[in-house]
Amino acid sequence: VSGNDLARFAGIPSFMRLPVHADAEGLDAAFVGVPMDHGTSWRPGARFGPQQIRTQSAMIRPYALQTGAAPFDGLTCADIGDVALSTFDLRAAIGAIETAYGAILSTGAVPMTMGGDHTVTLPILRATAARHGPVALVHVDAHADVNDEMFGARECHGTVFRRAYEEGLLIAPKVWQVGLRGTGYSAGDFDEPRGWGFNLVTAPELWHKSLTGLGEHIRAQIGAAKVYVSFDIDSLDPAFAPGTGTPEIGGLTVPQVLELIRALRGLQIVGCDLVEVAPPYDPSGNTALLAANLLFELLCILPGVPYR
Amino acid sequence: VSGNDLARFAGIPSFMRLPVHADAEGLDAAFVGVPMDHGTSWRPGARFGPQQIRTQSAMIRPYALQTGAAPFDGLTCADIGDVALSTFDLRAAIGAIETAYGAILSTGAVPMTMGGDHTVTLPILRATAARHGPVALVHVDAHADVNDEMFGARECHGTVFRRAYEEGLLIAPKVWQVGLRGTGYSAGDFDEPRGWGFNLVTAPELWHKSLTGLGEHIRAQIGAAKVYVSFDIDSLDPAFAPGTGTPEIGGLTVPQVLELIRALRGLQIVGCDLVEVAPPYDPSGNTALLAANLLFELLCILPGVPYR
Amino acid sequence: VSGNDLARFAGIPSFMRLPVHADAEGLDAAFVGVPMDHGTSWRPGARFGPQQIRTQSAMIRPYALQTGAAPFDGLTCADIGDVALSTFDLRAAIGAIETAYGAILSTGAVPMTMGGDHTVTLPILRATAARHGPVALVHVDAHADVNDEMFGARECHGTVFRRAYEEGLLIAPKVWQVGLRGTGYSAGDFDEPRGWGFNLVTAPELWHKSLTGLGEHIRAQIGAAKVYVSFDIDSLDPAFAPGTGTPEIGGLTVPQVLELIRALRGLQIVGCDLVEVAPPYDPSGNTALLAANLLFELLCILPGVPYR
Amino acid sequence: VSGNDLARFAGIPSFMRLPVHADAEGLDAAFVGVPMDHGTSWRPGARFGPQQIRTQSAMIRPYALQTGAAPFDGLTCADIGDVALSTFDLRAAIGAIETAYGAILSTGAVPMTMGGDHTVTLPILRATAARHGPVALVHVDAHADVNDEMFGARECHGTVFRRAYEEGLLIAPKVWQVGLRGTGYSAGDFDEPRGWGFNLVTAPELWHKSLTGLGEHIRAQIGAAKVYVSFDIDSLDPAFAPGTGTPEIGGLTVPQVLELIRALRGLQIVGCDLVEVAPPYDPSGNTALLAANLLFELLCILPGVPYR
Amino acid sequence: VSGNDLARFAGIPSFMRLPVHADAEGLDAAFVGVPMDHGTSWRPGARFGPQQIRTQSAMIRPYALQTGAAPFDGLTCADIGDVALSTFDLRAAIGAIETAYGAILSTGAVPMTMGGDHTVTLPILRATAARHGPVALVHVDAHADVNDEMFGARECHGTVFRRAYEEGLLIAPKVWQVGLRGTGYSAGDFDEPRGWGFNLVTAPELWHKSLTGLGEHIRAQIGAAKVYVSFDIDSLDPAFAPGTGTPEIGGLTVPQVLELIRALRGLQIVGCDLVEVAPPYDPSGNTALLAANLLFELLCILPGVPYR
Amino acid sequence: VSGNDLARFAGIPSFMRLPVHADAEGLDAAFVGVPMDHGTSWRPGARFGPQQIRTQSAMIRPYALQTGAAPFDGLTCADIGDVALSTFDLRAAIGAIETAYGAILSTGAVPMTMGGDHTVTLPILRATAARHGPVALVHVDAHADVNDEMFGARECHGTVFRRAYEEGLLIAPKVWQVGLRGTGYSAGDFDEPRGWGFNLVTAPELWHKSLTGLGEHIRAQIGAAKVYVSFDIDSLDPAFAPGTGTPEIGGLTVPQVLELIRALRGLQIVGCDLVEVAPPYDPSGNTALLAANLLFELLCILPGVPYR
Repeated sequence: VSGNDLARFAGIPSFMRLPVHADAEGLDAAFVGVPMDHGTSWRPGARFGPQQIRTQSAMIRPYALQTGAAPFDGLTCADIGDVALSTFDLRAAIGAIETAYGAILSTGAVPMTMGGDHTVTLPILRATAARHGPVALVHVDAHADVNDEMFGARECHGTVFRRAYEEGLLIAPKVWQVGLRGTGYSAGDFDEPRGWGFNLVTAPELWHKSLTGLGEHIRAQIGAAKVYVSFDIDSLDPAFAPGTGTPEIGGLTVPQVLELIRALRGLQIVGCDLVEVAPPYDPSGNTALLAANLLFELLCILPGVPYR
Repeated sequence: VSGNDLARFAGIPSFMRLPVHADAEGLDAAFVGVPMDHGTSWRPGARFGPQQIRTQSAMIRPYALQTGAAPFDGLTCADIGDVALSTFDLRAAIGAIETAYGAILSTGAVPMTMGGDHTVTLPILRATAARHGPVALVHVDAHADVNDEMFGARECHGTVFRRAYEEGLLIAPKVWQVGLRGTGYSAGDFDEPRGWGFNLVTAPELWHKSLTGLGEHIRAQIGAAKVYVSFDIDSLDPAFAPGTGTPEIGGLTVPQVLELIRALRGLQIVGCDLVEVAPPYDPSGNTALLAANLLFELLCILPGVPYR
Repeated sequence: VSGNDLARFAGIPSFMRLPVHADAEGLDAAFVGVPMDHGTSWRPGARFGPQQIRTQSAMIRPYALQTGAAPFDGLTCADIGDVALSTFDLRAAIGAIETAYGAILSTGAVPMTMGGDHTVTLPILRATAARHGPVALVHVDAHADVNDEMFGARECHGTVFRRAYEEGLLIAPKVWQVGLRGTGYSAGDFDEPRGWGFNLVTAPELWHKSLTGLGEHIRAQIGAAKVYVSFDIDSLDPAFAPGTGTPEIGGLTVPQVLELIRALRGLQIVGCDLVEVAPPYDPSGNTALLAANLLFELLCILPGVPYR
Repeated sequence: VSGNDLARFAGIPSFMRLPVHADAEGLDAAFVGVPMDHGTSWRPGARFGPQQIRTQSAMIRPYALQTGAAPFDGLTCADIGDVALSTFDLRAAIGAIETAYGAILSTGAVPMTMGGDHTVTLPILRATAARHGPVALVHVDAHADVNDEMFGARECHGTVFRRAYEEGLLIAPKVWQVGLRGTGYSAGDFDEPRGWGFNLVTAPELWHKSLTGLGEHIRAQIGAAKVYVSFDIDSLDPAFAPGTGTPEIGGLTVPQVLELIRALRGLQIVGCDLVEVAPPYDPSGNTALLAANLLFELLCILPGVPYR
Repeated sequence: VSGNDLARFAGIPSFMRLPVHADAEGLDAAFVGVPMDHGTSWRPGARFGPQQIRTQSAMIRPYALQTGAAPFDGLTCADIGDVALSTFDLRAAIGAIETAYGAILSTGAVPMTMGGDHTVTLPILRATAARHGPVALVHVDAHADVNDEMFGARECHGTVFRRAYEEGLLIAPKVWQVGLRGTGYSAGDFDEPRGWGFNLVTAPELWHKSLTGLGEHIRAQIGAAKVYVSFDIDSLDPAFAPGTGTPEIGGLTVPQVLELIRALRGLQIVGCDLVEVAPPYDPSGNTALLAANLLFELLCILPGVPYR
Repeated sequence: VSGNDLARFAGIPSFMRLPVHADAEGLDAAFVGVPMDHGTSWRPGARFGPQQIRTQSAMIRPYALQTGAAPFDGLTCADIGDVALSTFDLRAAIGAIETAYGAILSTGAVPMTMGGDHTVTLPILRATAARHGPVALVHVDAHADVNDEMFGARECHGTVFRRAYEEGLLIAPKVWQVGLRGTGYSAGDFDEPRGWGFNLVTAPELWHKSLTGLGEHIRAQIGAAKVYVSFDIDSLDPAFAPGTGTPEIGGLTVPQVLELIRALRGLQIVGCDLVEVAPPYDPSGNTALLAANLLFELLCILPGVPYR
């Protein structure tokens, strides 16, 4: 819907005002929300992430002026709504997500996920590996999310990528974790995943620099492997993305993450997520506006998108 | 959709998660948004009113525990989205609204409007009178909205009911304006509409009192005439409804307006609106939550609603 | 600590700046936090409730000017910190709470709980009944919380009092639920608990009225039975308590709930809670200030408090 | 300036868009700001009170529709700006205020003060007594402000009326303190001022009641004495006035304070203040809007105001 | 007024506490507000921009420590208040602005405009061209604002520079648009204005770079031509300027825009505006503080400003 | 306390959940709050700084992943609460702080101060010089704070370092002031302290650059002298630290200040402060989160901290 036919603030909001479909059948890319936050350890609220991302996405027009991407010329896209899941039982929710993504992936559509806390990525990776086998991973985040457990929980937003590694869902040497920082318990927090083959890039290594080069290097290293992109909004500095549950100082800038995403064009991406947008902590909506734009940028680098 | 099938914060929001229809065909009551605020003289933002009302309405369940009303047992209802209108040209927008409501009313559906600033009521009354002839009016508001013009404009949120009177859209002796207060320019501000036959009830007359009696009196006076209900959220005290464009101190309480609405049951209501919710001034969403509940209460007194 | 020895905004906050104890040993009344919100169905955030209630409580001085109560002249009180519980596993958390309250109650101290969502009351009632046998209940709330299940969960903030009834934790004819309102699914929502013997008082029955009479009636009906008081902040109208997870319009006023609490003086109270304060939705802190004062008022009616 | 000549949100804000004068010469009533908050014990911010009250006052029109008062038909009014005072030295500021008010009062104008924290009232009363002799007082507040000292300070916002009594600035039996509540240290907090002859009316005595009767009683008791009106915005419940430094639950309602002020018409008022509006705690501006309206209502009851 | 004579938060706010004049007569530079937002397509609120910019500007002292500029040593400056215009009729407002600026420019003063939405620049450019002939333009913005129409409107905040080009108000090869980004409809969005001769510089071309070089290049290219500077606050990244109506991610930084402005010193500037500050979306006031500083920096590069 | 033993949002907050001690006896580093803001000239609120910094610090874990610092392996640390001081008398408060720090320093502990406005640094430097003699200074700030007086006050947040210089508390050639910017009254504002021997580095000199080099240079220049580090949060750009009293545009970035601090490792630091966090202007808590992390980074460079 063009902003000149119906004002941008009007209408019942879907992602970028796309058509609403009941399922992913016939789609090349399916936007889907996973509204939950019971996997979060600090500030909850990400359950309202999909809602606010959809609302803010009304500002985005279909052509990427900066890169020339015209995704809707080449891909059939729709918003298929939110996964139904239990608010009270984290384990049940994780199961429900895996089932829902199994169904989405069976149609051949690429799922473009609006979280939700980062826990959602674990069942998505399970469904993805079930369909595609182990995948390469570009994981942009302040945190490596490789804890063994948190307060007794083995499946929550801080343990996702250890579980994924243990379960063989990932091609370990083709895993890139970018933007890491913060505090921890020992040097082992980073050394252990490096031992598995993961490539960890901390934020201080990237300060003041363009990320185009890093992005090109990652693209080259991953090559033709199928790849999943998991984007935690807290990879960005809280100045750019205050509306999140576990903010960490000293993060990436918006130009950096745009450079990184744009440099990944050409990869065989089989799924993307944008997680940890927590609206109660940014009533201005700017964090969700950023998230919506990043999802659009990820859409623009999917296989099959024409540039003009 | 029950909150036990899909979490209340999930899904693409329509009013009370009702089905979304393209038009009012086949409906008994049609929820419709008119997202505009270029008719407002002080704080803009009501253009986002329909969006926030829809979001907050997800909390409301289908049965009114306090009164026994079960509107969806008797009426077919849907959300038909927002009227498309120009953000830049108030006169053009007023025309577009009249046209849109002509279409809605031609189906026989009762329009349940989410504003938008109060200007929206003028074209709705024009369309209503075109179909039903002059109507009785219950107008709950801090302001009488009977200016002759504001800054040169003869059609804006402060002139609606003078225009409606002049154009013969109303049955003047069956017009009730409830909750009036604030400051003005002379005693004539109230005396003139009284001269037309309007019944004005100021807020100080109502302080500390139940409004059940007033509501029953209005119902008796209006009798069998067709009636339109126009509800400005600023009728309420800003403590209850801070998110509005022209707040006035000393307003009605929530129990009072609930009593008033419930006492009107039995009237031949042909349309309702709830206007002037301005989300930027209440990020908590509580003003919109109140507005959504008042729309539900208005739905519950439409002709044909069963009580059990 | 007096505000003239250390400024009220200084110091590490405990409830009313009371001493911090490691456990309830030797106390008459023990303030304790249960920071969780994974039992909530709509807006999370109550996990930060104890923290904000403690901070705001620094404003309260030790003598109740309006009633003459001087609780610290008669009772030994302390803040014993928060219950340690899993953020990720609701069932495990419920178990941990029951254990923790078993320990508190074994000392003879009256637990004064800062929630946390309303789920916390179920394990507290279990521990309470284990020590005292079934108890009378004064439950002030917008919602009856007597669902059988919510999204498959049998133990969450909407099912507490059905579970408590089924498990025989309550003396059903001495259960009072005050302030009920909102919407539901059928008249049975209220009729069924009435069938168990519960006394339900809806908000519309109380509008515009003092609650002193109701409070005295409840006190007389409960008589000498041991009684638990569970106070959900959403019993109040959102104008008074916007910072909560499931606000409902048309609620009680602050004078009403103060009258109700004060009229209960003389009952054999064995525990109190104040739940559902969700700080992210009221950054002003006024909801938590209200909650802190209500906890102080509840303290003032415990057995053994002198009045002067 | 009418809202139809210059939009209400336009122009450089003076109180109610009155002319700005350099001093009070030739005025009947002079609006003046005292922007300070170093006399406050809890949340600062009242230094921005005059600014926000002026901004919000642009909404008020010159005629009081509810009472018929037309103050500008009978009185020459202007905004004379703010008192210059030291932000860093409370004692020096108190001296500067007394000097400034001496000058204002010497012109015969009635000062209408926008605070600032309540400390401002002490030097104003000193200047007032210097000109008029001891005065009667109507003091609307949550707190009696009769401490002997706070953290070693004998002149701050909690000691004003003890100092004024000791210094003989007040006619003690004609002092009325209305709206008192909150917590304290002993019954003496209220008994002592009663011993001086002060009339204290607590909030619980007023709950659920019109204040017209109390106002008429006060008017009759004060009779022909000159009277000063000091209005602390925290007399109101925080639901109505969240933007203040020391909120107390259970306060007055807006209808009550409007009734009280209107009933005082006929008194020989020689000065009024409205204090303790702290903008940082109410970004909506509604507390300041209320304050501006209360100042207008106080203006409407000054001697010489015509009603039509 | 120095902050040591009257506290910075005191007094009735004019821009930088300059004298308030009735018109521009005798001034070298005239600060003027144009409070409107009916030309905006997304979030309204810019009508309150001049008010908040004036309030925040109280923090700025008269000497630019970083550059040595002392504008008030060389230029006579005042605040001449706001243009009176209709809130309800965008076309009438555009006419009123052109008339008002004709009067300002006829005095020889350089107008320094506080918007308002970007629509204000069109009538200002008309009045400017009427006096000075076509002008060079430095336009700093996220958006090129060269649409042909928006929702049927040919004159609104998104069409300004196409209209100005068509009407011959600009020297096209001396037009510089800096900071462009966001999404659009086709490559033509940028190619067409380039075809007119405009110089477009997108944000990605500038990321991670100083803008001193670009500023010097622009200054050299424009040379001795008269030039107008139009500064949209949304040129900056939303992290720096969240309080605006149509935020776009990936924008300029504050150091960059300061470098750009400072490098333009020496140009024959005949007018400047700072538009699109929308206070409701940044209650902290920091966006307006930034805007006020940018206006001061623009003042510092006007012809005739001494540096010491 | 680990986040896996007690949830991070639980418990009574001390800095980083350290043990609470009554005094500094036996400690290597003592975290202490100085909650005051009566030394501030613009927006108050810093009195709540220690409280919000403590709350946000719960997010920080004990090991610095980016640098390898493990401060608690080498140093005994505790939170010793807040200094008791008068809210009403700035001079008395300054005296009380000096006394309190004399006591802390006498134990040999390094005080790690949470402000409070910047005035607190003057009495701390007096106590520091009394124990250690004149010290070198690293002062990171937007403002040089070298006024002679402000509104008659010689000791307030804008005069600290002139007083310290005059009193011989500093080794002038080893004073570094980093991040200076904003506006002033003349070039002398910076030239005069340079004349004393101070090293001033303005923000524009640092834009777009790593500060590692500057930090290493400062470390080399200071050498073996004892040094105090005073960190004003407004040194950072308001995008990163909106919650402060006197924000200035164009400030440092978070990566820059982290680089600066880390490069200072090896200095003989005898005290650190982090001042001017004003919570009312950043309800998200992110400014305080940043402040808490900066204090942790400062802790990490104290003498005796092991790296692993």
